[in-house]
Amino acid sequence: VHRVAVDAMGGDHAPGEVIAGAVAAAHRGIDVVLVGHESTIRPLLNGADLAIEHADDVIHMGANAARALREQPQSSIAVASRLVASGGADALVSAGSTGAALAAAAILIGRVPGVLRPSIASVFPTPGTPTIVLDSGANPDCKPEHLHQFATMGSLLSREIFGVAEPRVGLLNIGEEEGKGRDLDKAAFELIAADSALRFIGNVEGRDVGRDACDVIVTDGFTGNVFLKTTEGAVRLALSLVAEGFATHSAEAQSSLGAVLGHLAATLDPDAYGGALLVGTAATVVIAHGSSSSRAITNAITMAADGAAHRIPELLAEQLVPHTA
Amino acid sequence: VHRVAVDAMGGDHAPGEVIAGAVAAAHRGIDVVLVGHESTIRPLLNGADLAIEHADDVIHMGANAARALREQPQSSIAVASRLVASGGADALVSAGSTGAALAAAAILIGRVPGVLRPSIASVFPTPGTPTIVLDSGANPDCKPEHLHQFATMGSLLSREIFGVAEPRVGLLNIGEEEGKGRDLDKAAFELIAADSALRFIGNVEGRDVGRDACDVIVTDGFTGNVFLKTTEGAVRLALSLVAEGFATHSAEAQSSLGAVLGHLAATLDPDAYGGALLVGTAATVVIAHGSSSSRAITNAITMAADGAAHRIPELLAEQLVPHTA
Repeated sequence: VHRVAVDAMGGDHAPGEVIAGAVAAAHRGIDVVLVGHESTIRPLLNGADLAIEHADDVIHMGANAARALREQPQSSIAVASRLVASGGADALVSAGSTGAALAAAAILIGRVPGVLRPSIASVFPTPGTPTIVLDSGANPDCKPEHLHQFATMGSLLSREIFGVAEPRVGLLNIGEEEGKGRDLDKAAFELIAADSALRFIGNVEGRDVGRDACDVIVTDGFTGNVFLKTTEGAVRLALSLVAEGFATHSAEAQSSLGAVLGHLAATLDPDAYGGALLVGTAATVVIAHGSSSSRAITNAITMAADGAAHRIPELLAEQLVPHTA
Repeated sequence: VHRVAVDAMGGDHAPGEVIAGAVAAAHRGIDVVLVGHESTIRPLLNGADLAIEHADDVIHMGANAARALREQPQSSIAVASRLVASGGADALVSAGSTGAALAAAAILIGRVPGVLRPSIASVFPTPGTPTIVLDSGANPDCKPEHLHQFATMGSLLSREIFGVAEPRVGLLNIGEEEGKGRDLDKAAFELIAADSALRFIGNVEGRDVGRDACDVIVTDGFTGNVFLKTTEGAVRLALSLVAEGFATHSAEAQSSLGAVLGHLAATLDPDAYGGALLVGTAATVVIAHGSSSSRAITNAITMAADGAAHRIPELLAEQLVPHTA
C-alpha cells in the first residue's frame, strides 16, 4: 500500500480545505499522512483517523523558495519531503508555494538517475483522453536535450497513467513544417525525431488546442506556462463574452446557457486532476493549485497515489539508465 | 497623397479577392497600385481605374523564401518591394508567403536606421482599444535589447495609429513579479524598466488576455506567435463547445446563441485590421492573412495607408537616432 504525504499547511485555503480533501481521499482507501502543526490539524479532522506528522513551521507564498527552505527546516513542505525521502511516505502533495515544492523536491527528495531536469507535467482537461503538457513551468530556460527528455517522461506518464498504448508526441512550435521555430526547437525536433522509442508526430501549434492532435505536448517551461495560462484566459474571455451577449435575451435562452456552461465547466474542470505532476523526481510529487478546493486536493492525492502505484520514478529510471535495471 | 503597392498575386484567394479588396480601397480614396501579371489583373478590375505594375512571376507559399526571392526577381512581391524602395509607392501590402514578404522587406526595402530587428506587430482584436502584440513571428530567437526595441516600436504604433497618449507596455511572462521568466525576460525587464520614454507596467500573463491589462504586449517572436495562435485556438474551442452544448436545446435558445455568436464574431473580427504591421522597415509593410477575404484586404490597405500617413518609419528613425532628425 502506498502512503501519500500531504502538506497540510500549503495553499490559499489551507489547512481547512486541504484537510477536508485528505479526509475524503482516506475514505477512498488511500493511506494519507498530514504534515503540519498537529494542534491545528487535529480539531479539523472531525474525528477522522488520519496520521499526522508534526511540523512547526510554514513557508509562505511569495517567499524566496530556496532560502526559505534552508532557513525553515521544520516547515511543513520540508518535513513532508524528508518523510518521502526516508521512505516514510511514497508520494507528496502540496498546494503551497510552487517554488518551495520544486526546491524541496530537488534538494530533499532528489532526482531519478539520468534525469537532466525534473519537469512539471500538466494535464490538459480536454474532452476525451487528456493531453499532457510539459514542461509547464519548472524550467524557463531549456536545452534541446531537456525537451527530448520531456518527450520521454511525458510518454511514460501518458502510457502508465492514462493508458495510451503509443502516446503521440508533438513539439509546440510556430508552424507545422520541420525547420520552424527557435534554434532550441529545431535541435529538439531532430533529437526527438531520431528517438525510435517515441511516437513523434512533429510540430503542433497553439491553434491545435482541443483538437486531440497529440497526447503529449513538449516545450520549454516558459512557453508551456504561457500556453496553459493563455488557454485558460482565452476560454474564460470567450465564455464571458458569450454570457454578456445573452444578457438581453429571453429567460429561456439564459437558462439554456446556464445549463450549457455548467456542463462545460464539468468537462473542462481544472480540478479534475487536482494538480500537475512533477516528473523526474525520485518520488511522485503532485503540485496542486494554490486555490485548491477540498475536491481538487482529493483528486491531487488520488493522482499522487496513482503515480506511486504505477512506479513512475522506477520505470523512468529503467528507461533512462537501462543497465541499472 | 500616399500610394500603396499591393501584391495582387499573393494569398490563398489571389488574385480575385485581392483585386476586389483593392478596388474597394480605391473607392475609399486610397491610391493603390496592383502588382502582378497585367493580363490576369486587367479583366478582374471590372473597369475600375487602378494602376497596374506588371510582374511576370509569383512566389508560391511554402517555397524557401530567401532563395525564391533571389531566383524570382520578377515575382510580384519583389517588383512591389522595389517599387516601394524606389519611391514609386509609400507602403506595401501582401497576403502571400510571410517568409517571402519578410525577406523582400529586409533585402529590398531595408530597415530604419537604428532598428536591430524589424518586428511583426499584430493587432489583438479586443473590445475597446486594440492591444498590439510584438514580435509575433518575425524573430523566433531574440536578445534582451530586441525586446526593449519592440517596446519602443509598439508604443509608437499604439500612439500614432490608435491614439493612445501614453501606451502601457507589458512584458509577456510566467508570473507577475519581477525576476520571473527566462534569462531573456529578466534582462529585458531591466532594460524596459530603465527606459523613461516608456510607460512600463511590468509583467503580464497569458491569463490577462482580453482584460485590457496593457496596450502593447512585448515578447520574442516565438512566444508571441504561440500566444496569438493559442488565443485563437482556445476561443474557437470554447465557442464550438458552447454550440455543441446548445444542440439539444430549444429552437429559441439556439436562435439566441446564433445572434450572440454573430455579434461576437464582429467584435473579435480578425479581418478588422486585415493583417499585421511590419515595423522597423524603411516603409510601412502590412502582412495580410493568407486566407484574406476582399474585406480583409481593403482593411489591410487602409492600415498601410494609415501607417504611411502617420510617417511611422520617419518617426521611428527620429526616436532611435535623434541626432539625424
